[in-house]
Amino acid sequence: MTFETPPRPLARAPRGFQDRRAGTLEIERRILTAVSRVYESYGFEPLDTGAFEYADALGKFLPDADRPNEGVFALRDDDEQWMALRYDLTAPLARFVAENWETLPKPFRRYAFGPVWRNEKPGPGRYRQFIQCDADTVGSSRPQADAEIIAMAIEGYAAAGLPPGACALKINNRKLLNGLLTASGVADPMQKLAVLRAVDKLDRLGSDGVAALLGRGRLDESGAFTRGAELEASAIEAVLAFVEAGGGSRESVLERLSNVIGGSAEGDEGLAELSGIGEALTRLGVDSSAAAFEPSVVRGLEYYTGAVFEAELQLQGEGEEAARFGSIGGGGRYDDLVARFTGERTPATGFSFGVSRLAAALSAIGAAGGAPRGPVVVLALDQTLMGDYFALAAELRASGIAAEVYLGGSGMRAQMKYADRRLSPAAIIVGGDEIAQGVVTIKDLDLGRQLAEGVTDNRAWREERPGQISAPRSDWITHVQRIVEAAG
Amino acid sequence: MTFETPPRPLARAPRGFQDRRAGTLEIERRILTAVSRVYESYGFEPLDTGAFEYADALGKFLPDADRPNEGVFALRDDDEQWMALRYDLTAPLARFVAENWETLPKPFRRYAFGPVWRNEKPGPGRYRQFIQCDADTVGSSRPQADAEIIAMAIEGYAAAGLPPGACALKINNRKLLNGLLTASGVADPMQKLAVLRAVDKLDRLGSDGVAALLGRGRLDESGAFTRGAELEASAIEAVLAFVEAGGGSRESVLERLSNVIGGSAEGDEGLAELSGIGEALTRLGVDSSAAAFEPSVVRGLEYYTGAVFEAELQLQGEGEEAARFGSIGGGGRYDDLVARFTGERTPATGFSFGVSRLAAALSAIGAAGGAPRGPVVVLALDQTLMGDYFALAAELRASGIAAEVYLGGSGMRAQMKYADRRLSPAAIIVGGDEIAQGVVTIKDLDLGRQLAEGVTDNRAWREERPGQISAPRSDWITHVQRIVEAAG
Repeated sequence: MTFETPPRPLARAPRGFQDRRAGTLEIERRILTAVSRVYESYGFEPLDTGAFEYADALGKFLPDADRPNEGVFALRDDDEQWMALRYDLTAPLARFVAENWETLPKPFRRYAFGPVWRNEKPGPGRYRQFIQCDADTVGSSRPQADAEIIAMAIEGYAAAGLPPGACALKINNRKLLNGLLTASGVADPMQKLAVLRAVDKLDRLGSDGVAALLGRGRLDESGAFTRGAELEASAIEAVLAFVEAGGGSRESVLERLSNVIGGSAEGDEGLAELSGIGEALTRLGVDSSAAAFEPSVVRGLEYYTGAVFEAELQLQGEGEEAARFGSIGGGGRYDDLVARFTGERTPATGFSFGVSRLAAALSAIGAAGGAPRGPVVVLALDQTLMGDYFALAAELRASGIAAEVYLGGSGMRAQMKYADRRLSPAAIIVGGDEIAQGVVTIKDLDLGRQLAEGVTDNRAWREERPGQISAPRSDWITHVQRIVEAAG
Repeated sequence: MTFETPPRPLARAPRGFQDRRAGTLEIERRILTAVSRVYESYGFEPLDTGAFEYADALGKFLPDADRPNEGVFALRDDDEQWMALRYDLTAPLARFVAENWETLPKPFRRYAFGPVWRNEKPGPGRYRQFIQCDADTVGSSRPQADAEIIAMAIEGYAAAGLPPGACALKINNRKLLNGLLTASGVADPMQKLAVLRAVDKLDRLGSDGVAALLGRGRLDESGAFTRGAELEASAIEAVLAFVEAGGGSRESVLERLSNVIGGSAEGDEGLAELSGIGEALTRLGVDSSAAAFEPSVVRGLEYYTGAVFEAELQLQGEGEEAARFGSIGGGGRYDDLVARFTGERTPATGFSFGVSRLAAALSAIGAAGGAPRGPVVVLALDQTLMGDYFALAAELRASGIAAEVYLGGSGMRAQMKYADRRLSPAAIIVGGDEIAQGVVTIKDLDLGRQLAEGVTDNRAWREERPGQISAPRSDWITHVQRIVEAAG
């Protein structure tokens, strides 16, 4: 058997990577601009680290540990050091802070946005490159720092265009469940991790499913068995009482939690921190409907040490749709991440917007704006007039109207089709006659589209050339301007 | 001998990768915004492809072929396919166009910006990740398409803040030298490539050095010998006459070129294309001082098939400095790049801004703006007043002033030092007395800095607390506004 090398490479994007065009990019940029502005208004400065970090600096904190290279894209540099593409913006920040601690203003407040990469199994809607937009405060252990991060996230979602009430911040603290488990005699970190993973499935499996995963294990409908965390019955009960302590005001959740935590030192610490965050949120004017305490929240990343936050899309009456988006951002406190480098505990807290997911959510709820409009197209009908066409396009641009001369090699019909495909608001038609008469013919393409769809009444049909006007060179721009403004 | 694993990873960015902070990012963003706006005004639509391409789709067009993986960062996906990080934005565009040709408006005009990666030997000021910002027209063979790309580049540099005359576009056509070599009996592609490499060194080595490299070879000052292209004496003479045919108006260069090209079909084609570009440029109002024909221009990337463009920084009276920046952008026509995938020749032309280099150039000539200012800092002096501090910061933000509450754990002195490090225009000081009196103390930090530097006359010294005022809660914001506006 012989294989021939194909003569030409196949034109396809790598699996799990996406080409994003004008519509998507416009929403993403609007989000980034709006959220950056919120971050800057709170005094956060921008920072951009490179795409690569040394693998040891990045650490292994991703949940999907059975993937190649622990879920990251890694390669060996020519000096034999392993580098990996960043999987989030937090791990590179920890490296940067550790590297520059002496000269940084403290607390160090920075925001950042850009692509991150995860070497996950690609699937429909699951991409291996996506955009995050983070703000972090490094060097403050105050609960006010967490509260401020949460308040900024809420302000950011609103600024990005989410309608009021569409997004709820849920807050938890890892010390609570940890303390409860310690009090229940669970000390093994792997067993604790299994408990976290089980709790994380509450939404999907309900209490019974989680109870099974906390105990011996669970047999799913397909017949597959997932091993459980092997907790005692009393511990299972305590964990379930804990994860179901949410609902209602922050104060009422705190009260219920203090009853189920069981009095370990770590649990009490978590409670005190939550209480401090709650007080600061109230002072910042953020009430329980915008930011609630929710003990069932578990964040996947392993570096969080205390408070964790998660932003969930809540769309009234569209439960299924909302569930599809789920988390559109999250964060928390990671007091040990800088200490990995320096050996000195450095308190830090932050939040990350899942920009690509938020953009998809905005599109789905119709809050993303219409399809991007193309430029005004000056048709190229007479090769001897190319100079005039360029002059017309330049005149339009000078008036703030995006414009281009058609530069393909096709005739009038194809040129009109081109303008239509670009969703251009208008086409400019000039031949020898127009030049001789000192006029410009302007075609309103939206009107043409409406006529084609039968949207507009038949008055316009009575005109010989519907939607087409002839304007003198002295004021043709105002006519185009009107059409462009109407097109929006 | 035993090696112990160090207990902690070293905090350092990978070799050749850069952390960019507020100052640099602000310039880069200004450039990207300005250039994108120019591209959009000409009807180019945005596109963002992923960081990775399959290695076969990316092709091997980088000049630095003796580096690992031909100068790119490559890795094997878990399905065994080789992927590589894009080294420019053109190769991914060719893949995208080939993949979507049927549904794209034609010509397809897109702009893109983002990081690209090259696996080059890192050195001072030589980074392995940098930002490009490109516009390309795919599907037009017209010289007007090239001319428009050049006109946009010139407009883009001006919009980004380069002073008039600081940047000159130089235009050449690869068909000229190719035709000349064919006419001189040189057919071997490797020999032709050696000629290109020799010509590329004209700036650095002068005619004699280039002549040596065109012939047997050249012995440099360090005693190292570079093998030459082994051209005959007559061919060397023809090549030198060609590369020295630049200078003066586009028309005069064309005339000189037509005398030295030697009448090959390919050379004549190149001449006709240049002539067409020149005419279109004149129609677009771009004269020879802004865009000249320069036969010595060679672009490093191997995919160019015809016209090539290069933007060079020209700063009067600062020759050495200007030379350090050299090329700040370039492009050309690459009619075969899409055909690699489809087998069908698809004419294409484009230009790429070297954003990072342009940003460095703008900084060097003082056109980059001042250091970025920090937020107004509300000092946290009394823990019982944190709610008031947050309210004050929120009031400032509501008036469009970036503001933060100090969230570290240090005292007044350190808090003032923090505000100073952030280059904050003002600090807000409120204690129990201020609350009781219904006032806010505002410290003008720029005035404080001037006093410290002895810039301001001693009138201010006579005040008890220079640069510090006490304002009633009813109109304190206007005072802060004035200070912030003065700080710029």
